[in-house]
Amino acid sequence: MKVTSYAKGNWIEKGKETDLISAVNGKKVATLIEGNLDYKGMCEYARTVGGPKLREMTIHQRAFKIKFLGQYLMKHKEEFYELSTHTGATRRDSWIDIEGGIGSIFTLSSKARIELSDLPFHVEGGVERLSRGGTFIGQHICVPKHGVAVHINAFNFPVWGMLEKFAPAFIAGVPSIIKPSPMGSFLAHAVFKKMIESGLLPEGSVQFIAADIPGDLLDHLKSQDSVSFTGSAFTGRKLKAHPNIIQNSIPFNLEADSLNCSILGPDVTPDMEEFGLFVKEVANEMTVKTGQKCTAIRRTIIPKDLVDDVAEALKIRLQKTTIGDPASEDTRMGPLASSEQATRFGEQLQKLIDVTDTIYTTGGDEKDAFTSPKVLLCKTPVTVDEVHTIEAFGPVTTLLPYENIDEAITIANKADGSLVGSLFTNDDDVARVITLGCAPYHGRFMIINRHSAKESTGHGSPMPHMVHGGPGHAGGGEELGGARAVLHNMQRVALQGSPTTIMNIVQQYVKGAETKESEVHPFKKYFEDLTVGEALTTHRRTVTEADIVNFGGLSGDHFYAHFDDVAAKDSLFGKRVAHGYFVLSAAAGMFVHPAPGPVMLNYGLEDLRFVAPVYPGDTIQAKLIVKKKTVRQKRETDKEPYGMVWFDVQVTNQNEELVAEYTILTLVKRQNRLDMDLD
Amino acid sequence: MKVTSYAKGNWIEKGKETDLISAVNGKKVATLIEGNLDYKGMCEYARTVGGPKLREMTIHQRAFKIKFLGQYLMKHKEEFYELSTHTGATRRDSWIDIEGGIGSIFTLSSKARIELSDLPFHVEGGVERLSRGGTFIGQHICVPKHGVAVHINAFNFPVWGMLEKFAPAFIAGVPSIIKPSPMGSFLAHAVFKKMIESGLLPEGSVQFIAADIPGDLLDHLKSQDSVSFTGSAFTGRKLKAHPNIIQNSIPFNLEADSLNCSILGPDVTPDMEEFGLFVKEVANEMTVKTGQKCTAIRRTIIPKDLVDDVAEALKIRLQKTTIGDPASEDTRMGPLASSEQATRFGEQLQKLIDVTDTIYTTGGDEKDAFTSPKVLLCKTPVTVDEVHTIEAFGPVTTLLPYENIDEAITIANKADGSLVGSLFTNDDDVARVITLGCAPYHGRFMIINRHSAKESTGHGSPMPHMVHGGPGHAGGGEELGGARAVLHNMQRVALQGSPTTIMNIVQQYVKGAETKESEVHPFKKYFEDLTVGEALTTHRRTVTEADIVNFGGLSGDHFYAHFDDVAAKDSLFGKRVAHGYFVLSAAAGMFVHPAPGPVMLNYGLEDLRFVAPVYPGDTIQAKLIVKKKTVRQKRETDKEPYGMVWFDVQVTNQNEELVAEYTILTLVKRQNRLDMDLD
Repeated sequence: MKVTSYAKGNWIEKGKETDLISAVNGKKVATLIEGNLDYKGMCEYARTVGGPKLREMTIHQRAFKIKFLGQYLMKHKEEFYELSTHTGATRRDSWIDIEGGIGSIFTLSSKARIELSDLPFHVEGGVERLSRGGTFIGQHICVPKHGVAVHINAFNFPVWGMLEKFAPAFIAGVPSIIKPSPMGSFLAHAVFKKMIESGLLPEGSVQFIAADIPGDLLDHLKSQDSVSFTGSAFTGRKLKAHPNIIQNSIPFNLEADSLNCSILGPDVTPDMEEFGLFVKEVANEMTVKTGQKCTAIRRTIIPKDLVDDVAEALKIRLQKTTIGDPASEDTRMGPLASSEQATRFGEQLQKLIDVTDTIYTTGGDEKDAFTSPKVLLCKTPVTVDEVHTIEAFGPVTTLLPYENIDEAITIANKADGSLVGSLFTNDDDVARVITLGCAPYHGRFMIINRHSAKESTGHGSPMPHMVHGGPGHAGGGEELGGARAVLHNMQRVALQGSPTTIMNIVQQYVKGAETKESEVHPFKKYFEDLTVGEALTTHRRTVTEADIVNFGGLSGDHFYAHFDDVAAKDSLFGKRVAHGYFVLSAAAGMFVHPAPGPVMLNYGLEDLRFVAPVYPGDTIQAKLIVKKKTVRQKRETDKEPYGMVWFDVQVTNQNEELVAEYTILTLVKRQNRLDMDLD
Repeated sequence: MKVTSYAKGNWIEKGKETDLISAVNGKKVATLIEGNLDYKGMCEYARTVGGPKLREMTIHQRAFKIKFLGQYLMKHKEEFYELSTHTGATRRDSWIDIEGGIGSIFTLSSKARIELSDLPFHVEGGVERLSRGGTFIGQHICVPKHGVAVHINAFNFPVWGMLEKFAPAFIAGVPSIIKPSPMGSFLAHAVFKKMIESGLLPEGSVQFIAADIPGDLLDHLKSQDSVSFTGSAFTGRKLKAHPNIIQNSIPFNLEADSLNCSILGPDVTPDMEEFGLFVKEVANEMTVKTGQKCTAIRRTIIPKDLVDDVAEALKIRLQKTTIGDPASEDTRMGPLASSEQATRFGEQLQKLIDVTDTIYTTGGDEKDAFTSPKVLLCKTPVTVDEVHTIEAFGPVTTLLPYENIDEAITIANKADGSLVGSLFTNDDDVARVITLGCAPYHGRFMIINRHSAKESTGHGSPMPHMVHGGPGHAGGGEELGGARAVLHNMQRVALQGSPTTIMNIVQQYVKGAETKESEVHPFKKYFEDLTVGEALTTHRRTVTEADIVNFGGLSGDHFYAHFDDVAAKDSLFGKRVAHGYFVLSAAAGMFVHPAPGPVMLNYGLEDLRFVAPVYPGDTIQAKLIVKKKTVRQKRETDKEPYGMVWFDVQVTNQNEELVAEYTILTLVKRQNRLDMDLD
């Protein structure tokens, strides 16, 4: 097979040819074809063809495309597994890369649809009141940058690494140029090819670079572009300081080396469940992907008096790690990704061996890209810097004993920034102290006990819901994190103006904006016919003592402020008041249209504030305003069966003072709906 | 007076002396004393003394300190005004700097208390469900970095520039080292001295560098530190690429030159209100602070056929700009900040004059730091790059005519990233198209019409609620923006673990965590005695047809799903259901303790979801759980009169299925409260 570039909508079939070698048997798997690429043209193509096409869609529409893309890729997963073996990955390793990668984009799609606006841009946070009279307000929006997102990916997760960066950029409305590592690029290329084949991605929204080094690509980037780099700190830092990156303030996200740690809590003894869970996790993180994970546990921090117990338990576990052909079902650990990687691993390992005691290694039989797990011990981890700075990218960990909790925290933080730390303890107070002590130095921190272990997703797995990245040594970057991943590709803009002007831009009702009284009751209108800012002002209702008495009797709520004249006089209210929930119920009684119609149900309520008390004798009135709308879609062929509509409700009294305000969430039928599936 | 450093808790009174000169009369105002500073020691002092002291407090406690600091500084404002004159500032200019600066920290304090947790760190967003059974969950927190925030400030707003960076770092729990520009440093120093004098700021939480260049400061920064730079793009970019900054992934926020624009909409004619408002704003932004604002309108984008009208109207307005001693009440515009600034302005201005037509200048009389306003015209703004790249930092703007809306957008975006743009139009559709067209290139975008003008805070004023910063040419940074300003100083960490473990860390109830049944009804407990996770499980209640009928009768809500057997059969529910608000009311009836007690009122409700229908015959039960607590304080001497308590409510049916869940917000008395002021 050929690994070719996809530039300006074309596969580049000619160029310098390099053999791509299987990590397992040293045989050729594919040919990398490095064409003579027009990087400047590729950037311009993304900006002028892909960007505008993506920006025509709403965030939700783009997120749906990603969902459908995930479904398409999932159908072809076996083809990917087959190729993945040649990267040295066992079936289990490949599962993380392939199904983990596809699963991530499902989650990112879903989180974007739940948390972000159904507009080409996102309306972030609430309205900021900037003036006393409310005629001048502020509202933040996040808009797709008018540039291209360049993704430079690492070799260890060809699929996950590509998809977890591509999906957020796409959902944000920003086209991507993907540059995988040549190592394992045959797998990335196979997946990429299916992405194009799916027909789901608009022209120009994605391009692919088959090359060792991406030529002068960075020279052609502009201020609206961005770079997301995963790989060695050395290369990453060099690129981050590239004159053009600095000159044009081009956002550069760096995800690099990380000497992650796992800590065994001081409360844990060898007979406790947490001890076994800890040893299992350390061994697992050493051997999964043959230790080639930027999140692997390089530093195993344990109580001083448990060194022998942990070492012994680890040895027993590691002895079961069968090494061999990753395609074989019996194999627990395959080779490193290439013989170059094996050499590099050997060099770094030697530097660690020089400053530590080797307490476990099978040794011997280290041929080609194959290696065996190693456990080192550093008896003075507070003073030996190397164990906190040198990363050997393979199946190795160093045991670092500690005296007390403070020292455990000091040792954990000595790596000066890492992607992830973890802690095994059954004492939640230990958990609090160590977690907060380590937090500023870690992008993610996992605490495991007997209750969470079974469902834990593991120390080494970045979850698409949670941020991935770490300070300092780990590069200072941030990826993933649900909707945050999408926002990283956008420009935040502070809008200021009159409420009506802002409403017209953000397509969402904002307080103080002009509303338009609806001629037809909004509950009689289908989703398509409801307009943001249209309103229903109800008839009025005088709240009486009888209402309070009846409501208290029916609900059972006899709170003194409603029923005890004596205590109510001394309360904040000064006299008896109506129940807040009565006001809410009476407002619904005024605005709900009773006959069957497009509004199917009220499934929630947000941001309710009881602003002023309602006394017996007060006359209330409600105003219902269409605040915003979102469509839902399950399959690509669905004609969006229904929509969600947010209504703002303002309840006022006879003096036109606001007494309560809130937002209700309703499900509204579409006129052209196809089904009623609510899942 | 002497401008001295404040290092490691001491004023450094000895060092190299430099005269600081008044911009008005060329006389000496103060002496800058550049001591021989131990920058490494200053950083270490901040990290080891200031940081730990700040982190002992909660975010709200730190925010209250900032509020009280603002009150203290406000008392001394007249002393600051007096000094400010010597920077060339009129009373009005100084108001922006001094009262604008102090006002900003009031807002930042208030936003932090409203939006962030009352803990030493912030609990960000909701719980992430990472497992089917819910025993393993995720939660993001933002923790203070264990480093020092270095603030390198510009000369033009000595007070505002210092306070708007200091307050967010302090509230975040991060100590600051402040390095003002020597120009105007006498004013920054006077304010800083009062800050120390206030006695409000813990030891080590802030230091001050009196120096031209801050020596080898950047060499001593580490990965937990950060730099926030405002000033020239040239210097800023050089520092951003400093080897130590890159090597240790030190966050570097850059706020630099910006060629901001204001656009006159194509709908506006000279007889419209918006025309006058536009001309006024342009003239204003040219002359306030003698045009030395990074947000000033450098590019005035106008319809081609209105060039003469705008030029004429601008001339008339500018002729009224009396120039002279800023201390005089008649003066509308003072001198530039120094004769060096005047020279630099002259040089840059000449470059612009070379490529444009000068259409207004009084010329002559340009002596010392004094200059007069100038209006230039560039007839071909799409092709002349200089007008979009050269910033003359003084009272000048260039008129840039456009043919149509698309061209207006192109011209606006040609500056390749700016802090702020604005648009004057009375057509909200024009507003939408131009705003969204310009958005990705601007950090802030203001739209003004006759409705918003009166209360507008103006093109040039960054508001503490809204983000300040811009992409590309403007440096790519982001400051302010309410609570965001605080979070910029923190590390975001993704926590994972069991709900109970996470609850114990974040001190906030999370779904699935173990609760403890309260022995005393929570409504009988004072604020201090309520514990996160303590719960009240109520008695049960069977919902009957009579309840539905009575509730419909009382509320007036006769929605078919509750009252129409025929239509309800065809609905999602399949049969008649109880009102959602009845369930809410009945739940309150079960958990509210009727007698007077510490719970004063329920002032709001959040995140209500009706998860499943309640049918007649179903038996419901409620569980009330203390979710989180926040104290309130008005004055430094207040012993926090009351607190806010969030209760989670879960309503279940006879099958233990959840039917509704929500959070109620209550005000709860403290045992040691001093007053009841609710303001």
